[in-house]
Amino acid sequence: MVSRNRSQVKDHLGSKVLNHPELRNTKATEYMSHEEKYRYNLSRATAMLKLIDEEGMDVNEISKVMSHTVSGFTTPDGNPLAVHQVMFVPTLMNQADDDQVSRWLGDVFNGTIVGTYAQTELSHGTFVRGLRTTATYDPASRTFDLHTPDVSAAKWWPGGLGTTANHAVVMAQLYTDGQPRGIHPFMVAIRDRETHRPLPGITVGEIGPKLGQNTLNNGYLLFDHVKVPRENMLMRNARVNEDGSYTKPSHQKASYGTMVFTRVAIALDTVDALQIAATIAARYSIVRRQGEPRDDGQEPQIIDYQTQQLKVLPHIAACYVLRASTARLWEHHTHVTSEVRGGDTALLPELHATACCLKALVTQDCSEAIEALRLSCGGHGYMTASRLPALYAYATAGATYEGENTVLLLQTARYLVKQAGGSHAPPAAGSAVTYLSRPADDTPFAVGSPAAYVAAVGRVARGRVTEVAAALQADRQTMPEADAWNQSLVQLVAAALAHGRYFVVREFAEVVSQQSSSRAIQQMLQLLFSVYLAHAVSRAEGDFITYGGLTPSDIRLNRRHLLRLLAELRPHMIPLTDAFDLPDRLINSTLGAWDGDVYRRMFEQASHSPLNTDEVPASFHQAMLRSKL
Amino acid sequence: MVSRNRSQVKDHLGSKVLNHPELRNTKATEYMSHEEKYRYNLSRATAMLKLIDEEGMDVNEISKVMSHTVSGFTTPDGNPLAVHQVMFVPTLMNQADDDQVSRWLGDVFNGTIVGTYAQTELSHGTFVRGLRTTATYDPASRTFDLHTPDVSAAKWWPGGLGTTANHAVVMAQLYTDGQPRGIHPFMVAIRDRETHRPLPGITVGEIGPKLGQNTLNNGYLLFDHVKVPRENMLMRNARVNEDGSYTKPSHQKASYGTMVFTRVAIALDTVDALQIAATIAARYSIVRRQGEPRDDGQEPQIIDYQTQQLKVLPHIAACYVLRASTARLWEHHTHVTSEVRGGDTALLPELHATACCLKALVTQDCSEAIEALRLSCGGHGYMTASRLPALYAYATAGATYEGENTVLLLQTARYLVKQAGGSHAPPAAGSAVTYLSRPADDTPFAVGSPAAYVAAVGRVARGRVTEVAAALQADRQTMPEADAWNQSLVQLVAAALAHGRYFVVREFAEVVSQQSSSRAIQQMLQLLFSVYLAHAVSRAEGDFITYGGLTPSDIRLNRRHLLRLLAELRPHMIPLTDAFDLPDRLINSTLGAWDGDVYRRMFEQASHSPLNTDEVPASFHQAMLRSKL
Ligand SMILES: Cc1cc2nc3c(=O)[nH]c(=O)nc-3n(C[C@H](O)[C@H](O)[C@H](O)COP(=O)(O)OP(=O)(O)OC[C@H]3O[C@@H](n4cnc5c(N)ncnc54)[C@H](O)[C@@H]3O)c2cc1C
Ligand SMILES: Cc1cc2nc3c(=O)[nH]c(=O)nc-3n(C[C@H](O)[C@H](O)[C@H](O)COP(=O)(O)OP(=O)(O)OC[C@H]3O[C@@H](n4cnc5c(N)ncnc54)[C@H](O)[C@@H]3O)c2cc1C
Repeated sequence: MVSRNRSQVKDHLGSKVLNHPELRNTKATEYMSHEEKYRYNLSRATAMLKLIDEEGMDVNEISKVMSHTVSGFTTPDGNPLAVHQVMFVPTLMNQADDDQVSRWLGDVFNGTIVGTYAQTELSHGTFVRGLRTTATYDPASRTFDLHTPDVSAAKWWPGGLGTTANHAVVMAQLYTDGQPRGIHPFMVAIRDRETHRPLPGITVGEIGPKLGQNTLNNGYLLFDHVKVPRENMLMRNARVNEDGSYTKPSHQKASYGTMVFTRVAIALDTVDALQIAATIAARYSIVRRQGEPRDDGQEPQIIDYQTQQLKVLPHIAACYVLRASTARLWEHHTHVTSEVRGGDTALLPELHATACCLKALVTQDCSEAIEALRLSCGGHGYMTASRLPALYAYATAGATYEGENTVLLLQTARYLVKQAGGSHAPPAAGSAVTYLSRPADDTPFAVGSPAAYVAAVGRVARGRVTEVAAALQADRQTMPEADAWNQSLVQLVAAALAHGRYFVVREFAEVVSQQSSSRAIQQMLQLLFSVYLAHAVSRAEGDFITYGGLTPSDIRLNRRHLLRLLAELRPHMIPLTDAFDLPDRLINSTLGAWDGDVYRRMFEQASHSPLNTDEVPASFHQAMLRSKL
Repeated sequence: MVSRNRSQVKDHLGSKVLNHPELRNTKATEYMSHEEKYRYNLSRATAMLKLIDEEGMDVNEISKVMSHTVSGFTTPDGNPLAVHQVMFVPTLMNQADDDQVSRWLGDVFNGTIVGTYAQTELSHGTFVRGLRTTATYDPASRTFDLHTPDVSAAKWWPGGLGTTANHAVVMAQLYTDGQPRGIHPFMVAIRDRETHRPLPGITVGEIGPKLGQNTLNNGYLLFDHVKVPRENMLMRNARVNEDGSYTKPSHQKASYGTMVFTRVAIALDTVDALQIAATIAARYSIVRRQGEPRDDGQEPQIIDYQTQQLKVLPHIAACYVLRASTARLWEHHTHVTSEVRGGDTALLPELHATACCLKALVTQDCSEAIEALRLSCGGHGYMTASRLPALYAYATAGATYEGENTVLLLQTARYLVKQAGGSHAPPAAGSAVTYLSRPADDTPFAVGSPAAYVAAVGRVARGRVTEVAAALQADRQTMPEADAWNQSLVQLVAAALAHGRYFVVREFAEVVSQQSSSRAIQQMLQLLFSVYLAHAVSRAEGDFITYGGLTPSDIRLNRRHLLRLLAELRPHMIPLTDAFDLPDRLINSTLGAWDGDVYRRMFEQASHSPLNTDEVPASFHQAMLRSKL
């Protein structure tokens, strides 16, 4: 027994999923063919959708059962309906006008319409304005002509597009009156609702295998002058009238809300993946014994090596800090959304800027951490059955989709340098950027004082942002804007990350200080926070020297402090990962089960290899004995 | 056209492989079943072995055609005969006595014996003395009884063991006269030579799917009191006589030679993988255009973004530096091997220490670099067809096998602290550790001077090693050795890495200074070296402040210097990757081909998806339409 408590799925929703008749019997998918895998995941995704429908779940419940903790169980190789649920439907809700919503939504909910969100093209992802699929309005026929000018403008990547969806929201360059009007969304039927055959003029298929998530069913899509009725442009914001006249959207930021939502959701899901990985590595590091026997005659548990503590424990602290801070951003989002509904969009740009850098920071930190945890399991971490490779494949994809991380950080940076330059209205109270317009917090740095660490993190953010804002300002006097911007690119990215880090630690500082929790819990949160802070400093020492007010001698002191804190955290490792409350079926790892019976499980799973079914696999005879070396 | 020269396989050996009738026609393996993949890779591995034999290749030629550059073409999913070739045969040659060699070698070379090297067990990898498979000698029958006490002592991981090998060199705990004698190698037949059926008492199979390299055919193996004749213990070093009396090996370091050989080979192969990844990312970063069009009306090539230069260019410099330094270690190895043959083993411990830290440093740097390069390709880097995921899966395995990196670094560290403590004989002239016993090089640090950077790297190594040696010394006064050692573990690892870095830069400094190359080449090497050094400092600023003599203001200066150097290197990027001389068939990437025709290639490879063969995949109907959402 490694864990102190056998986790039960205590909550209602989780157990509904795990015990659902169409979901509870899982199969190992690792030896399935690509098509079998797709079929298995699709049928489970379908069952999930039905369950959501039957239970009448609200948005919070849905995000819970769609979170990676649960979806890694329902659709272990990627959910081919995910984009339908998290992008297609929300886009319709937000960007279709009321007529359109009432026209389509019934068919969406009864499953006649299955959709995807088709934005990215082979040659354009990041630079959305560069998309080259055209939608040219013809007033005579009152239709748009959708067209793909060449292969490199093919839609490429949309999830579910491969073979699952029969509709797509297609982002295309609108032309009316011979004028380009920018990128707009169009609802396009791509396959027949009955036969599922591609409609005339449509070329569609699956893009091929990937590092992971192979049943997301990512697809490609080309149009050969496909006619789409005028009423299929999503018209809540911009409009094209029958005569071809064009009405601009009232405010450009209309779609920020959905983007913030998706990015915060990605951040939370990636922390889910880290929690699972941390639980696996923690439990394995207790079970695994390796090395010169100690006084008790037993080989040491590997977690008692100082190096192993450094590989594992900081990431457990990160789970706590990143989850709490991201959850708080989620609350801000809920608040801002209700303000926006009331017509006040003032907080939206900042929320958007924060979500961009947080998605980037969390996906980057978590994927690096998962990989470090995998490596900490030695050879056995390389096995699929450890689940660690799949967790990494999932987390690292989040660094690219919904905005490549560098590009997202540059969006945050653009907002920050404007704030630092004073060219924006001063931020509202409670804003995350007020620190830029106030004098630096001059709490002197002192190893061991969390408040001093938080202040130092703040100074780094402030120093980074103001320095690059000034450099940019200066360069703009002597060179074109694009060149000036490019000269500072690396520093801009670093500034946005530093801002994100400050957001994270400030939010967690508030969590720690909340009086509602018991003293024991507060002490534990404090310890986790101290570990997180000391580790953060040790990973960016140059920054803390340059901007954070640390002296050269603080470096050595902080390093020692971190190692001492890890030793202090070590006895709490199992309770801290048990507290994630993950039952074995959701962890799904030979190395990470509750009972620590690692080796038996590894043996058991090896028996599934198709090469082990015959004593002598046919392939051996064919390739080898017959041809004799 | 991206590349300036279409690479031809110019050398004789490479073209022999690429044009060999059984190798030249490659198939895409991504949709093959596990068994088909195995069959495909095994038959190509067999063809390769035949070719080596027919051509009568010497060891240098063999390591060339077995290098990752070539083997990624011959056995893209992992070579199931690799362990036979690189571990089983060399172990026989080095550890079997002359009688044994002549008894077995004929059958090995005619392909009757196919072997593996079975050391690791389910519960023991790193700590070899803890292996629990027993070999108990019985003088009456003159046999060893090989036995696996329980499942956790099963052999687990050996390559080719799954279903390929019929023999294994098994490392087991020897018992004679009731005494444990430590771990010794035994030649054991595990499958019938004719029928390939497992022999009585043997349980053997494949361990299951992994992060990558899935046709290495890693296996498990259990013994139920299997009798092995006395003559099957490999007896070049230790001996068991007929009566059970035991003769110790003459010197313990006998097997160091093979270990050094394998580790340097792994380092070189991992640089191969990095070279391929760097070529792919460099070419793609030229082809890919993304962003606001510039004055020429075109969107910028992504390589012109400063952030992209930082993602790509330092790793090209690393290819040059790491390859050259590792090749020089290879030369040292050849030299030391001939000394050892002449009876002089004085240089062996140091060579071993250097090989340990170099293998760790190179595999760690290269896997991180490959992953950064993959991410630099945005979404398309996530596709299998980019080849980047497979290159990573290959490189990161090297961080674990043949000595887990942390453990290897600790071996180097043990050697270094002994040297620093003066408890060893002073090192020979030309040794890599003389710097420890000399005063620190006090060349003042100056951004822009390579010599100053090299000196600073040396000071970091020296500072790290001497500091931890002193800490260890002090702790040993107050606590047991194991605890003292463990208290310093993190610092020991850091010291060994710093030593490795110093070895690398010192060796490359010599390469740069060689007068034999032309001035243009020398300037280019100098630029690459400068990039490598500035990047190395930027990744470990805290160390350079604490031990390297840098002042806080040097940090900012070095960061700027690095960005300037990258801009300087940018125009040479394509010639520098072209110089790796990798033809398209060896690169095997949709993103990295010579002609830059990325999008057409991506489209072409997508057509292979089995989901694209029917307009409506059967799976769709089954899972979805029929069950209606
Ligand atoms: C698993 C997965 C699922 C996906 N699902 C969908 C989907 O359902 N629907 C959909 O439409 N798309 C989807 N995508 C596509 C995804 O949104 C894009 O891959 C992503 O937006 C990144 O764009 P890109 O691939 O064009 O990267 P690129 O922009 O080409 O990035 C390549 C490099 O260029 C750099 N770069 C680019 N522009 C700049 C700049 N302005 N400044 C500095 N550096 C720059 C980047 O930092 C990066 O290093 C998916 C992708 C993946 C991997
Ligand atoms: C692809 C692949 C192919 C392989 N092929 C073969 C083969 O052909 N034949 C064969 O015999 N084996 C093979 N192996 C096994 C391989 O050699 C072992 O996995 C490797 O030696 C690491 O040992 P381990 O797995 O026991 O890791 P562990 O030692 O269990 O490592 C787990 C963690 O414990 C830490 N740790 C362990 N000991 C110490 C210590 N003393 N001090 C500090 N930290 C410590 C490590 O740093 C690591 O973080 C292969 C492995 C892989 C992944």
